[in-house]
Amino acid sequence: MSAIPERLAQQMAFIIEADKLKNIFRQSYISDESRRENDAEHSWHLALMAITLYEHANDPELDLLKILRMVILHDIVEIDAGDTYIYDEVHKQDQAIREQQAADRLFGLLPEDQATEFRSIWDEFEDGESPEARFAKAIDRLHPMLLNHLAGGKTWAKHGVVASQVRQINQKIEKGSETLWSYAQDLIQKSIAAGTLPDQ
Amino acid sequence: MSAIPERLAQQMAFIIEADKLKNIFRQSYISDESRRENDAEHSWHLALMAITLYEHANDPELDLLKILRMVILHDIVEIDAGDTYIYDEVHKQDQAIREQQAADRLFGLLPEDQATEFRSIWDEFEDGESPEARFAKAIDRLHPMLLNHLAGGKTWAKHGVVASQVRQINQKIEKGSETLWSYAQDLIQKSIAAGTLPDQ
Ligand SMILES: [Ca+2]
Repeated sequence: MSAIPERLAQQMAFIIEADKLKNIFRQSYISDESRRENDAEHSWHLALMAITLYEHANDPELDLLKILRMVILHDIVEIDAGDTYIYDEVHKQDQAIREQQAADRLFGLLPEDQATEFRSIWDEFEDGESPEARFAKAIDRLHPMLLNHLAGGKTWAKHGVVASQVRQINQKIEKGSETLWSYAQDLIQKSIAAGTLPDQ
Repeated sequence: MSAIPERLAQQMAFIIEADKLKNIFRQSYISDESRRENDAEHSWHLALMAITLYEHANDPELDLLKILRMVILHDIVEIDAGDTYIYDEVHKQDQAIREQQAADRLFGLLPEDQATEFRSIWDEFEDGESPEARFAKAIDRLHPMLLNHLAGGKTWAKHGVVASQVRQINQKIEKGSETLWSYAQDLIQKSIAAGTLPDQ
């Protein structure tokens, strides 16, 4: 057996550890309602949304490669910190601390230059201020709304979520894409009309 | 409800149809051996490998954004055509025809300019000749080998696959990355030493 260079060994350790994201299940169901979605699938679906929809970003000058790096990496911290439901106010309080510790450990598996690079991409996403982060966060919010609409409002019903909450939590989509926020509002209206989201 | 622009409606139809990739299961098990991996998870893991490992490509000038588009889209056709196991010589014969038909239907959901663009990215991946396609195919081959090694050779055992076959099928990794082919050969040696891959 040839010796594996240390740098490659560190990169592969990160890639192997990341396999655990396939076991982090979210609140959303996949569209056929058969089971809950996991973070790895969700991250792929966001990447597909990014390459298909980035023309609808408010800022036409944004860097698609950076958006893709963000959505590929954005949930990795949930391997340690778990998925926090966006309507769960209790667990959202210590979410930031848990996720920072997770980022230290997980990105720390990489060679130092890449650990710094990936961490700064994740920090930029978390800050949510750059045009790329705004768009990445917009699709990260639209995606579970879309699945929930397709799955007949299953998760909303389970947690007693009503239309005004969905509007309030997701209005930030507008910061990344006014077009996608219009689309999201249309989804809310359709869910209300279908009787799967209470109009309160 | 506001009217959804036709272009956005077509894009969303594609994104919604693509959700079915989460139900296309592969031969590989995830690393904890608990269940088989699906194509959506696999595609995300390849994207993570791409952003982490592209420095190891033979061609240092390659376009990472193109590689990411390739790996995000490469298995979408399996929604219609199903996953064909790489060691399955019978089903590999009509695989190309089934996948071409699937590409017509699935990319055809998109607005015409994007249908053409995504189809040409997929065609370039399938041809396997550009530097980006060679690297994307290299990680697409390395990934199931890695999972199989981590999962104790489960899929190899099930299908009676031996080391010489693994070497023969995966040698093309070398066309995309000599470094990753060395790593893959090391995985084969480790699997043989662990008794999980017959040395034949
Ligand atoms: Ca495949």
